[in-house]
Amino acid sequence: MTELTRRLILASGAAVAAAPLIPPGARAGGGGSESGSPTSEATGGQVPSIYRYKVGDFVLTAACDGMGRRPLEGFISNADKADVEAVMKEFFLPPDALPISYTPLHVQAGDRSVLIDTGTGGRSAGTSGFLLDNLKAAGVDPESIDTLLISHFHGDHIGGIDSTDGKPNFPKAKILVPEKEWAFWTDPAEMERAAEGRKGNFALVHKIFDHRKDEVERFAWDSEVVPGITAIGAPGHTPGHTIFRIESGGSKLVFLADTTNHPALFATRPDWHAVFDMDPDMAEETRRKVFDMAAEERVRVHGFHFPFPANGHLAKKDKGYRFQPINWEVVL
Amino acid sequence: MTELTRRLILASGAAVAAAPLIPPGARAGGGGSESGSPTSEATGGQVPSIYRYKVGDFVLTAACDGMGRRPLEGFISNADKADVEAVMKEFFLPPDALPISYTPLHVQAGDRSVLIDTGTGGRSAGTSGFLLDNLKAAGVDPESIDTLLISHFHGDHIGGIDSTDGKPNFPKAKILVPEKEWAFWTDPAEMERAAEGRKGNFALVHKIFDHRKDEVERFAWDSEVVPGITAIGAPGHTPGHTIFRIESGGSKLVFLADTTNHPALFATRPDWHAVFDMDPDMAEETRRKVFDMAAEERVRVHGFHFPFPANGHLAKKDKGYRFQPINWEVVL
Repeated sequence: MTELTRRLILASGAAVAAAPLIPPGARAGGGGSESGSPTSEATGGQVPSIYRYKVGDFVLTAACDGMGRRPLEGFISNADKADVEAVMKEFFLPPDALPISYTPLHVQAGDRSVLIDTGTGGRSAGTSGFLLDNLKAAGVDPESIDTLLISHFHGDHIGGIDSTDGKPNFPKAKILVPEKEWAFWTDPAEMERAAEGRKGNFALVHKIFDHRKDEVERFAWDSEVVPGITAIGAPGHTPGHTIFRIESGGSKLVFLADTTNHPALFATRPDWHAVFDMDPDMAEETRRKVFDMAAEERVRVHGFHFPFPANGHLAKKDKGYRFQPINWEVVL
Repeated sequence: MTELTRRLILASGAAVAAAPLIPPGARAGGGGSESGSPTSEATGGQVPSIYRYKVGDFVLTAACDGMGRRPLEGFISNADKADVEAVMKEFFLPPDALPISYTPLHVQAGDRSVLIDTGTGGRSAGTSGFLLDNLKAAGVDPESIDTLLISHFHGDHIGGIDSTDGKPNFPKAKILVPEKEWAFWTDPAEMERAAEGRKGNFALVHKIFDHRKDEVERFAWDSEVVPGITAIGAPGHTPGHTIFRIESGGSKLVFLADTTNHPALFATRPDWHAVFDMDPDMAEETRRKVFDMAAEERVRVHGFHFPFPANGHLAKKDKGYRFQPINWEVVL
């Protein structure tokens, strides 16, 4: 057999014939725009980030809104930098910043067309705000959505309810929110005593919700908010943070929302506290309870900040958990 | 906080209001066909399985051809059934059959438009044959492809060179094949002595290549077949099985072809021999050499049968390896 040498497999700086560069973000191949994706220009030539699967008779579509990069500095309040860097390296993540994506989930639940969380609405980094384009690429018309289910009131979950010029992105949708989350973020006393860095989110809540406060429906935890979809309290990340159990035909999936951020860090080390968690001890307690049950029952989960397609299973591993991404199905 | 009970998170058989079913494979939402993917009908409503990333200045597009399901019975010649089932369970794979996908890779290498391997061409299960649709969905016009690079002559790699009615799928492409692979599969003596189950593949080789034998270019191992792409011998799976090192601007990726089948089984247990490997001992030796180097150098890899997007890194783990899928990038 040939000699499989390092030089052959891993050669670097070897003679590579000079090749003309193509412009950054240029589309590969010669396909016309009509065959390309609607988001390929905005995403620098990337194809749509969409994925579809079934849970019983329900058809679920993960449609990514985009991503940000969170510098590690000051990100985790109770971890040694070296330990964080070691985990980042173990998962082949960049050494200095964590890529965090935002993936809302569309659920065709019988005749109900439900979107869980709405992404940033283009209010964050230039690398997000692609939800509408990605839904369209998946054949989901925003006008067809009858229900918006909101897990909590952080900007990457409610920002996409309206466009940046204040028009509703899902004009026919009724908006369902956790009553505990509503109570917290609309309380003037809470806004008053909030840390400076959190006041912006209060302002966004007012911008999104004040003019529609009579239309928004507030739900209690442990209630079936849409046939087949049950809201479950999972507080800590925010006071009213909610996860959803989606069940059809004996199959189920748990929409974890922000029970944890990126699983490479916070499933591996559930004891680590990200700055996004408003009550980090309660968030950790919630995380362990939910993950223990998900692991023991081997239930499929969707994590809003998990790497796209944001879908898989949790298993116990060492003192934490291992996230096993789903085996992508090429046919539905 | 709410009581996170098993009943809440994992309830099954709880009262789920009767919801009208939608037909299997029906498209979610109300999007018209023009906004859907060209493959969504064929794939039962699934969206395109495409993913794009850069290696230096090259733009790479993974475009899936589809998948098959291989029953475990008789699949691995030297493993205990219970051990295989345990690994399948660890990776949340179905207990009885392994989902195996086929993902060719398009490389826009400067002004060269290269497709590595061609999928089944619709000659296999009804759940494959989607490569052309997926390339189009990614904006890659089959007519723009100037080079087909073939890793080896199994049907899921050469089947897509022609349509099932014998027309070239990539009419302007020059076809480059490993000379050792050509020598083996076109040798009448080899066909003569081949096991019955292998004769079909000899017939396919003749069907695909006989009428174009003067146009096909045969390359030697260790040669740069396209500027930036080097062919490396990795025999065992087939006598002329070839992997490719793709290198641009100091970055690189190794196209592993079939150095291993599904990594859940054969990275975890590199000593297991799949029936697809023609010389299983040599295939194992090759696998360990390639994986050792890939793990040590932390080089990015594309595995033809790895779960879509077929991309990530290998790390040593226990007596084998761990495959860490890439963190999906929403923007290019």
